[in-house]
Amino acid sequence: MIKNITNVRGITCWGAHSGIKSMRRDLAIIYSKVPASAAAVFTQNQVAAAPVDLSREHVANGLAQAIVINAGNANAATGQQGREGAEAMAQTLAEELHIEKDLVLVASTGIIGVKFPTEEIVEGIRENAKNLTNRSNAGSFVANAILTTDTFAKEGFVEFEVDGREINMGGIAKGSGMIHPNMATMLAFIVTDIAIESKLLKTLVKETVDKSFNLITVDGDTSTNDTAIVLANGLAQNDIIKSKKDKGYVVFKKHLEEMMMHLAQLIVSDGEGASKFIEYEIVNAPSEDYARVMIRKISDSSLVKTAMFGRDPNWGRIISAAGNAGLPFDYEKIDLYIGSEKEMVMVLEKGSPLEFNTNYIKKLLKESHLKIVMDLHNGKAKSKGWGTDLTTDYVLFNSVYTT
Amino acid sequence: MIKNITNVRGITCWGAHSGIKSMRRDLAIIYSKVPASAAAVFTQNQVAAAPVDLSREHVANGLAQAIVINAGNANAATGQQGREGAEAMAQTLAEELHIEKDLVLVASTGIIGVKFPTEEIVEGIRENAKNLTNRSNAGSFVANAILTTDTFAKEGFVEFEVDGREINMGGIAKGSGMIHPNMATMLAFIVTDIAIESKLLKTLVKETVDKSFNLITVDGDTSTNDTAIVLANGLAQNDIIKSKKDKGYVVFKKHLEEMMMHLAQLIVSDGEGASKFIEYEIVNAPSEDYARVMIRKISDSSLVKTAMFGRDPNWGRIISAAGNAGLPFDYEKIDLYIGSEKEMVMVLEKGSPLEFNTNYIKKLLKESHLKIVMDLHNGKAKSKGWGTDLTTDYVLFNSVYTT
Repeated sequence: MIKNITNVRGITCWGAHSGIKSMRRDLAIIYSKVPASAAAVFTQNQVAAAPVDLSREHVANGLAQAIVINAGNANAATGQQGREGAEAMAQTLAEELHIEKDLVLVASTGIIGVKFPTEEIVEGIRENAKNLTNRSNAGSFVANAILTTDTFAKEGFVEFEVDGREINMGGIAKGSGMIHPNMATMLAFIVTDIAIESKLLKTLVKETVDKSFNLITVDGDTSTNDTAIVLANGLAQNDIIKSKKDKGYVVFKKHLEEMMMHLAQLIVSDGEGASKFIEYEIVNAPSEDYARVMIRKISDSSLVKTAMFGRDPNWGRIISAAGNAGLPFDYEKIDLYIGSEKEMVMVLEKGSPLEFNTNYIKKLLKESHLKIVMDLHNGKAKSKGWGTDLTTDYVLFNSVYTT
Repeated sequence: MIKNITNVRGITCWGAHSGIKSMRRDLAIIYSKVPASAAAVFTQNQVAAAPVDLSREHVANGLAQAIVINAGNANAATGQQGREGAEAMAQTLAEELHIEKDLVLVASTGIIGVKFPTEEIVEGIRENAKNLTNRSNAGSFVANAILTTDTFAKEGFVEFEVDGREINMGGIAKGSGMIHPNMATMLAFIVTDIAIESKLLKTLVKETVDKSFNLITVDGDTSTNDTAIVLANGLAQNDIIKSKKDKGYVVFKKHLEEMMMHLAQLIVSDGEGASKFIEYEIVNAPSEDYARVMIRKISDSSLVKTAMFGRDPNWGRIISAAGNAGLPFDYEKIDLYIGSEKEMVMVLEKGSPLEFNTNYIKKLLKESHLKIVMDLHNGKAKSKGWGTDLTTDYVLFNSVYTT
């Protein structure tokens, strides 16, 4: 009744309890009736988890048919035993589904450096592969089974048309971080029935991840397990999209971007220990890349983040962070706006501070959804990003966590 | 991007962490811009929780504008202190929203008999009433903030037309039970922008609850806090529905029934310690009431439930439970089918046992979604119900729980 990944043609799934985490769903399987064009982006962390290494190898040929995910153990820093565990997950699911092992992608999230419970998970996969279904509750099970410290499940669904064919796309994600940096993994899985060549899908996914998941920040750490996978199984039977010039490409790109941005923003919303969701926008920049780098720099700045927590319209910190981004930055052209999503106040015009009512801005900054816009007057490109504030709760939690 | 209660005209909401349960969202507020026709059904348990008593009084006039829900403490068996806590919840939210106190309904779920943390919750309400929004993530926050031992959030959303006006209806629910009978509360909140007279809504909600929430069983216990509330705020601007003969009534009834059945089935899906979801259907019965009573009797039978856990097509137990329902029952007319949602086998025809391949049925009963259909050949009424099996896990958990 809620549309989700089960409304994508040919997709069945199941999420259940395998025994790693007490009393919670912790094992998810997503299956496409036919092999799908597959593209994935993984963590840049040099210490990649075993499932990341394995999935990187399996997705190299641009094809996949199933994804298996476990929560509770990240299978990272687990050496040969971990690698064998990841292999066993793929092998077991392949056997149950009668497909080739390299059509199975694997992802894990949870505690790092703990022996991987291969036996329980393999047993769980055997039992649960039988339950694959397209009933909508199974979509909810999966969205919940991939969570760790998340406080809510993150889902998206959209329908659109290409070549007069209805295309369905559903996505799920997890990620919260902050309190437990060791479990701050971001995972995202998107399935669609659009027909698109896998090479083109690969380029597109890289581009869209740069505009979404790579533009969110909670605590600036990169997990060993970060994974975003897109499967496109072609069952919508549109003319297969082969080129960026195809009309269908433009439409698909738009919706894929929206889906990823939606999931990325949900992840930021779940930054525990954070009290505010902050949207950053940079307009009239020399290039999109320029705008993105600058946004990451500002949104990662502890000084900016604590100012937002304290409802302090301290624009100097924002400008200072921007000036430290390692990019040419013409301060005298800058307009800056600070406030909430409902109302912003201009605090800087062409580099000159404006008189403003501090108490009025402080009131705007009481909102939970803040907005900061910087106009560079130096080009036509723009970009958005999303982050959280830095709170006393965050500091308290993380200082306790290590002792 | 996922449509939910925030897509109903005039509805805003927020779900957050108030401090009762560590690190989880546990406080939810749902608000309608205008007072809504309101109807509610509450627990039949003689020991009703304080919020149930209060909401019963507040909804008596058929109007409400806001609902506040906390998870973590049921505010049941808490005496005068608890009553004051429930009053304080309504009073605080009314003040923040500038509405009359009796337009606020209150619900609680969690541990029974523990002093109610009024101060934390009142403080949480004050803080979070400011965040009310119609962004879709707020709908997810609310759906998650009302959970206790649930393993996934339960939501539904539907659009339909009345008088050429698009009507939106969204619902959320919680409930799992089994393992923690003290926390087995079922809560359901449905909001819609349809215009309907509150007296008619009241009758309709009673009827539909009887066909949905009252036909599910997990462990046969009734919580002190069970609550189902429907708000209809009229912002869709259809001609107000005043009579069962209005065309709009029939359409609304159909969709309200579907919404409640959907949420009810999700609750059964989340019966932890259960391994199977079982759908019961009785057809050709003398009356719907007859069919419902019989379904409850069969689906509550421990013998039937353990047989399903053991994949035993032991039809005698089903017939025996039916014969014990306290209703006239003509065994010689009965046809009985047992199996999964995908395939059933007829095991009894006009009261005579058929030869069947036990191993084949056992194989069907391996599925997680089972189905039992009984044809009474004694009228034209029918009804469906939903339940779980009874597992060794359930017994183990509950035997440990009391020691």
